[in-house]
This record gives sequence, C-alpha cells and structure tokens, in this order.
Amino acid sequence: MVDEFYISLAINEAWKYQGLTYPNPAVGCVITDKNGAILSISAHKKAGFAHAELEGVKEALAKLNPLLTFPQNPNELHAFILQNHQNLLKDSTFYVTLEPCSHQGLTPSCADLLCALHVRRVVIGTKDDTERAGGGSEKLKKAGIEVVIGICRQECEELLEPFLLWQKGRFSFFKLAMRLDGTYDDGIITSADSREFTHKLRDACDLIVIGGETLRIDKPVLDSRLINGKSPDVLICTKKEIDKNAPLFNIKNRKVIVQNSLDFPKEYKNIMIEGGSTLLQVFKDRVDWFLIFHSNFFSNKGKQNINFDLNLKLIHNSYIKNDRFAWYKKYTLQ
Amino acid sequence: MVDEFYISLAINEAWKYQGLTYPNPAVGCVITDKNGAILSISAHKKAGFAHAELEGVKEALAKLNPLLTFPQNPNELHAFILQNHQNLLKDSTFYVTLEPCSHQGLTPSCADLLCALHVRRVVIGTKDDTERAGGGSEKLKKAGIEVVIGICRQECEELLEPFLLWQKGRFSFFKLAMRLDGTYDDGIITSADSREFTHKLRDACDLIVIGGETLRIDKPVLDSRLINGKSPDVLICTKKEIDKNAPLFNIKNRKVIVQNSLDFPKEYKNIMIEGGSTLLQVFKDRVDWFLIFHSNFFSNKGKQNINFDLNLKLIHNSYIKNDRFAWYKKYTLQ
Repeated sequence: MVDEFYISLAINEAWKYQGLTYPNPAVGCVITDKNGAILSISAHKKAGFAHAELEGVKEALAKLNPLLTFPQNPNELHAFILQNHQNLLKDSTFYVTLEPCSHQGLTPSCADLLCALHVRRVVIGTKDDTERAGGGSEKLKKAGIEVVIGICRQECEELLEPFLLWQKGRFSFFKLAMRLDGTYDDGIITSADSREFTHKLRDACDLIVIGGETLRIDKPVLDSRLINGKSPDVLICTKKEIDKNAPLFNIKNRKVIVQNSLDFPKEYKNIMIEGGSTLLQVFKDRVDWFLIFHSNFFSNKGKQNINFDLNLKLIHNSYIKNDRFAWYKKYTLQ
Repeated sequence: MVDEFYISLAINEAWKYQGLTYPNPAVGCVITDKNGAILSISAHKKAGFAHAELEGVKEALAKLNPLLTFPQNPNELHAFILQNHQNLLKDSTFYVTLEPCSHQGLTPSCADLLCALHVRRVVIGTKDDTERAGGGSEKLKKAGIEVVIGICRQECEELLEPFLLWQKGRFSFFKLAMRLDGTYDDGIITSADSREFTHKLRDACDLIVIGGETLRIDKPVLDSRLINGKSPDVLICTKKEIDKNAPLFNIKNRKVIVQNSLDFPKEYKNIMIEGGSTLLQVFKDRVDWFLIFHSNFFSNKGKQNINFDLNLKLIHNSYIKNDRFAWYKKYTLQ
C-alpha cells in the first residue's frame, strides 16, 4: 500500500485522542516491519503518557517478543527499549503524523530512539516547527534513515491545529449535543459513554465556559467524576444575578469566574464552551472549533430554536457506540 | 495485526458501496502477502462488476506486476487472472466479509479462483447460507487452504442484512436529509457530492417512494441524471389528488403508482423512501433501515417539526466531504 494509506491510519488513531493531549499535540504512528507488515498503530493519549512513537515501539516489540515486560513510566520505558529492542525493529518503517521530537522534554527524544532502533524509513505528515522539539528529521537523516515529509500534509496540519493554537496562546472549542432530530433542550441527550468522553475533555481543559441559563436550569457540577479526573475552573458568562450556592461552586481547588464580558481570561489556554443554541450564537465567531454530538433518537418532547446562520467545515467524523460526533471549524472560502 | 483488524478494513471498504450492489451483497476483501503486508483493499461495487475477491486479486497483481493489463469484463478478468497470476499470490491471506461464492453465477466461483492462486489462508466474517452461492469454505478446505470463519461476525452480518432481506423478499430504507441544526424544509440541504450519492442509490433501487407533499412542493424528477443512471419506478403515497403533469410522470420506461395505502407493491425488492418528517412518521415502523444525512450548516430559515419518538441503532457512520451520513436500524432491546 502507498504511504498515504499508513499515514491515514495514523491520523485516524490520533483523532481518537484529540482534545485529550493538552498541552501536547495529538499524534499518531504506524510501524511496519521490513516486509511491509503492520506491527502497531498507536497514538499519544495524554500528557505524561508515552509519545505516539514510543507507544508504537512498545506495542510492536510486545508482538515480536511476547516475553518482554515493559515498565509503565515513559522515561523508564524509553530506557528499557534502548536496552532490550534486540534490533527487532531494524529496517522497519515509521509513519508519523508529526515529525518525531528532537529534544529531551518530559520524555527523551523520539528521533534519537528511532536512530537507535536502526529504522530504515520515516514518513512524516507535517514538520514540527516549534523551536523546542523541531529538527527531528535532520537527526534521522544524519543517521542514514530515509525521511519523507509532507504525506497527507493538510490532514496532519488540521490534526495539529489545537496544539499550534496553544503555542500561540489559546485553543477554544464549542461543544453542542443534539438529539438525532436536532433538538437539544435540557433532558438527557447522549449516552453514558459519550458523557464519559466529555469528562475526559473536561479533565484535559483548564477552563469550562457556560452561560447563566445553563447554571440556572441544569445546575451542573462540571467535574470529571466519571473518570476520576480534575474539576477545571469555570467561567460563567451572564448579565443576570446567579446563585452562588449552585453545586459547581462547592468544589475544592476550583476557581469560578462570573462575568458579563465574553472575553476569555488570558491565563487559560485550552477552553471548552459547553452550551446550547443561545450560547452558540453568542460564541460562534469567538471559538476555533466546534464539537457536535448527535445522539440516536428522535423525541416528541424535544425543543429546537436555532435561528442563525453558521457554515462549518467538517474536520473529523467519529462515533461512540450509538452517538455520532464530529469536529468542525468555521467554513471560510479558500 | 490480528485478523479482526484486516476484516474491519474489509468491512469499511464494503460499506462505501452499501445500497449500490443490489441484487448482490456488499462485500469487502483485504489481501495480505505471505509476509503479512497488505496488497489490496477492495469491495464489490455494483452488480455486473467484479466480486470483491476478484477485484482485490486484480489490484494486488497490478501492484506486484505493473506490466499486466487487465480486461474490464469480470468473466474475461477471471480467465485472464487464471492464466497470468504467475503464482504471485501464493501463500497470501484473504480476509473477506462473506464466504467466497462456490458457484458459477454471472461470474465464475471466487472459491475456485482462490484455490487456483494457492492462497494459504482465508479469513471469513460470515458464512454464505444461500443455497446457490454457499459452500465456498468447503471447497477451500479441500484444496488445503486454512479457513477461519466468524471474525467480526456481527458486523459482517449487519453489512449483509439488506442482501438477506432481498433474498427473503424485500429491503426498504428511509432516506432523510437534515441540516446540521436538524432542520429539513424544502431548501437545498446537502452538497452536490451527496446528491450524486443519492442518484447512485436511486440507480440501484427498483422503487422510490415519496409522499404527495413532496410531489406538490419539490416537483422532483427522481431520476439518476447526475450519474447517467436509470429512473426507477415511483410510488406516491397520498390521500389527495395530485398533478399528473408533474415532471416525474414524463419519464420513459417508468411506472408511477399513486395509492392511498402504505403497502409496498410485492414486485419491488429494493426500495428507498425519500421524504421529510411527515413521511418518516408514517413509515418509521415499516422500513428496515434509515439513512440519515446531516449537512454542514445551521440556517436561520430552517424549519423543524418532528414530534414523535424513534430510537435507532447506529450501524455505520460515514461522510461525503462536509456532509455526514449514517445507516441506522430500529433500536430493539437485545
């Protein structure tokens, strides 16, 4: 199969963790052996976890030598692999959505790891232009590894966009959940599995934004209890008086900001706005991306009152059991 | 990678042609070489075209021997491959969503083809229990090929469901197109690419069903002009008088049935109902599947008036450029 096929597999794997990797980028990796057989399909899952390449190497080695027992900690894993890879990945090909990092960050350099494994070829979706991590492909080339850059570049750049915006200052997205018929009043809409995914997103955010209406009607806690995650700070945008005894105020180590203005406070870099159509209308020109869920049922009790225009570009289409969701951004003529 | 991975690739490829293969089943096929590298990912695209296995063999051989020039006609292709395969697929593995056919139908037996190629292993999603085509795995086993049956069986059975219903008498599905906000009045909703897909569906159907309201408001032609396809017969379900000069009546070789009853005439086996919420409410308990499109925009001119309950099970989630679509069936407690 052609390079585009394997990079696409890596892109799809990475998208499963989009929104969950902050402050790191969502990255995917596919490793094929010297004969072209797929050994692993992996992704970076969360900050503090292994990079996509390291995770992929672990999964590939586990397949090639089932006797190996790998340490959990990424630094220990990296060191363990350097000592135990037995040249099992010699002449393999790596397909990565983003250039392997050249630097020692929280974990050691992935480019150095690939050099040590005597990889034959590295196919890269898009370059890492950050000063800190960039330059990985130069390292690889110096080690005699064939490097191809720019396969499915546009898709890889879109996958990377939240990370690039964090680097520049802030990424924000609006999450909207609708029934299959487009209604989205206050009843339960999506399934327990989708709500668990939302809790993972909250756990990775540093700020959740809601409107006063949501506070008054839903009385949400806005924590990540379904995954034992953190309770991010909350910004309530409202012109009216609100009830300071609402449940979300009673959370330790959480800051709650109540303001009339729609401006995001500067100190927050990864922001999720959770709301319905009223809030969407207010924020639609202020957010970078949109995350739209459609559940699996029509309801005769549903309400719908969207009355504005909004053209979106589909970036990624996915699902969780019976719920479908998709990442969008504003549609702009190219 | 495990068998499930390759069968999933075959399933996904087959779904691209769901609804287009009548009266044949939608089938997908992945071929890996003796080392496990993927050679091709193919599907049966349309009745009269090559079966998924034959198409996959063609694509794999084209890769292994770029000098080969293949005939278009499936029967000639089959004969050509038998003479020119040069044992290039010896010891390969085939992953097929449905048991390879054992019979000489419009095209020769795929099981015989795989035997002639000296395939090592065939992994099958679900058995073909039709009397005419079944028994392929016995042929393979007799030729010394390792056969595994039942990988991702449930997914493969769902993929096959329209075919099984045709065999029993009839498959019908309801197509509904909504904007991203759930509105679905008479303006343009989905893109030109999605409309082209709809024309492919029409070309494969033998009956399109609409309501009287659609005839009066949209005045549709209900042909397949975007792909130079056929104009299937039309059933108009209405209690009111209709305009017999409407465009859809002026099509050669088309029968138009106007009736008060909601019963599908017996002679039609592959039926698409095209309509909005009123017709959906009427037909929701009479159709097998649902095909629901969501376009990429919110509109302040949109209208929505769904007022019934309908719980669906997501079968397959997909997209065409900026439009998303999904196949559903009625949700029933297992």
